[in-house]
Amino acid sequence: MQQAIAILDSGVGGLTVVKEVMRQLPQEKIIYFGDTARTPYGPRPAEEVLIFTRQIVDYLLQFHPKMIVIACNTATAVALEEIRSRLPIPVVGVIHPGARAAIKTSRNLRVGVIGTEGTIKSRAYEYALRQISPQIQVICQACPSFVPLVEQGLFHAEETRKVVADTLSELRKKPIDCLILGCTHYPFLSDIISQVMGPNVTLISSADETAREISTILYHKGKLATTGTVPVHQFFCSGDPVLFRKIAQSWLNEHIKVTPVVWQVPNII
Amino acid sequence: MQQAIAILDSGVGGLTVVKEVMRQLPQEKIIYFGDTARTPYGPRPAEEVLIFTRQIVDYLLQFHPKMIVIACNTATAVALEEIRSRLPIPVVGVIHPGARAAIKTSRNLRVGVIGTEGTIKSRAYEYALRQISPQIQVICQACPSFVPLVEQGLFHAEETRKVVADTLSELRKKPIDCLILGCTHYPFLSDIISQVMGPNVTLISSADETAREISTILYHKGKLATTGTVPVHQFFCSGDPVLFRKIAQSWLNEHIKVTPVVWQVPNII
Repeated sequence: MQQAIAILDSGVGGLTVVKEVMRQLPQEKIIYFGDTARTPYGPRPAEEVLIFTRQIVDYLLQFHPKMIVIACNTATAVALEEIRSRLPIPVVGVIHPGARAAIKTSRNLRVGVIGTEGTIKSRAYEYALRQISPQIQVICQACPSFVPLVEQGLFHAEETRKVVADTLSELRKKPIDCLILGCTHYPFLSDIISQVMGPNVTLISSADETAREISTILYHKGKLATTGTVPVHQFFCSGDPVLFRKIAQSWLNEHIKVTPVVWQVPNII
Repeated sequence: MQQAIAILDSGVGGLTVVKEVMRQLPQEKIIYFGDTARTPYGPRPAEEVLIFTRQIVDYLLQFHPKMIVIACNTATAVALEEIRSRLPIPVVGVIHPGARAAIKTSRNLRVGVIGTEGTIKSRAYEYALRQISPQIQVICQACPSFVPLVEQGLFHAEETRKVVADTLSELRKKPIDCLILGCTHYPFLSDIISQVMGPNVTLISSADETAREISTILYHKGKLATTGTVPVHQFFCSGDPVLFRKIAQSWLNEHIKVTPVVWQVPNII
């Protein structure tokens, strides 16, 4: 049986990573878990996000994946190091790939980061960027309204356009030359974000960059799939499977099967 | 003492990797070896390139580096796996990083590759690209005249422009949407190559991409330098140190010291 890459997120945001893995690594089997019953993670206390992430990772381990991808910036910020330290397989987050891509892209060393309240409060991007490149200036902005819009599937609504323009009105005046989409939900809104920020700001999708790093790490571990066949992926979600399937099929452009999972523990602690 | 990243090449080409490592990882100390006495490697038999590469790696090991970077496509194609199998530290080549970046960039799955005769003959890029993405079409072209022009420092000469235009006259008619510069010398000529290929072809520098992957691998090994200081790099070359220093200082925009190394074995076997 082909070993899968297990990808998890607070909801549908991690599907942006899934889409890129399907495109960049078409032979890799994916098992996805979207915690749609408890989305968004952004406003939750760090301790709660850590417990939820651990619970999903434990669920995914039953499938014996070859890698765990925490495709949620909020969960990466609080849980990556802890999960990595206790598992023998590679555990990949979405913060460092985005940070490395921004360092490669930026010419003026002024980088913007947008994310959930949890991600921005953790200062994880600032830390990741300045650990590697101490001269870099980082300008951060929390965008708490974006994830609920995406989870409702409102990618191109007029309401969404207005919220994005209002939220980024200060950031667009800053002299940044690239902007990290520090939440895997945000690529769903990248057309609008790009229009608001203008042509001189390159958007960095942590989703795209994470797919690229998954490829790098699997190669260096000698674990790339080379079956020559297109695998059948599996999708799980903790909330409404009908809404999840609708958003996933529209984003991935293919038919998928979704298995609902009912948590045996209270949703909110 | 800070452990260095050891970078080697047949000549000055690997300086394109050095420049990107200095930019993307400003805290990392670099030890560079350019085998300028025996450049170019491209037309040499694979067995000879393997012996030369082993010899340089053995020389560099005296400095106890934390990573070896084979910043020469020809040497990567023939020596990477062998060197990697016998060393306990990460050994990074330049072929897979370029291949992965092309897979991330290409939208029409038609990728061009230019390189030395040795690299193209090895089919290493085709193998790396199609191992990951079997649907990809790869169009390769050897450009044996490019390396000698770079080693002479003729980056913008009219002669160089003519050679590049002639060499790529067939390739520019192909429906590729990205072109891998499959030789670390070629970024020295990227302005001219880009003009010849036109605006619809994205150039992929295996040098830039390799610097990015060095960052990924050091991070996952917990080996990133976080000294907060700018290190002093060391440069070695087997040929004329005056010409090497002239090219290196012009490319890197900084003053460097070069130590000449005289091989105790015959140059050509």
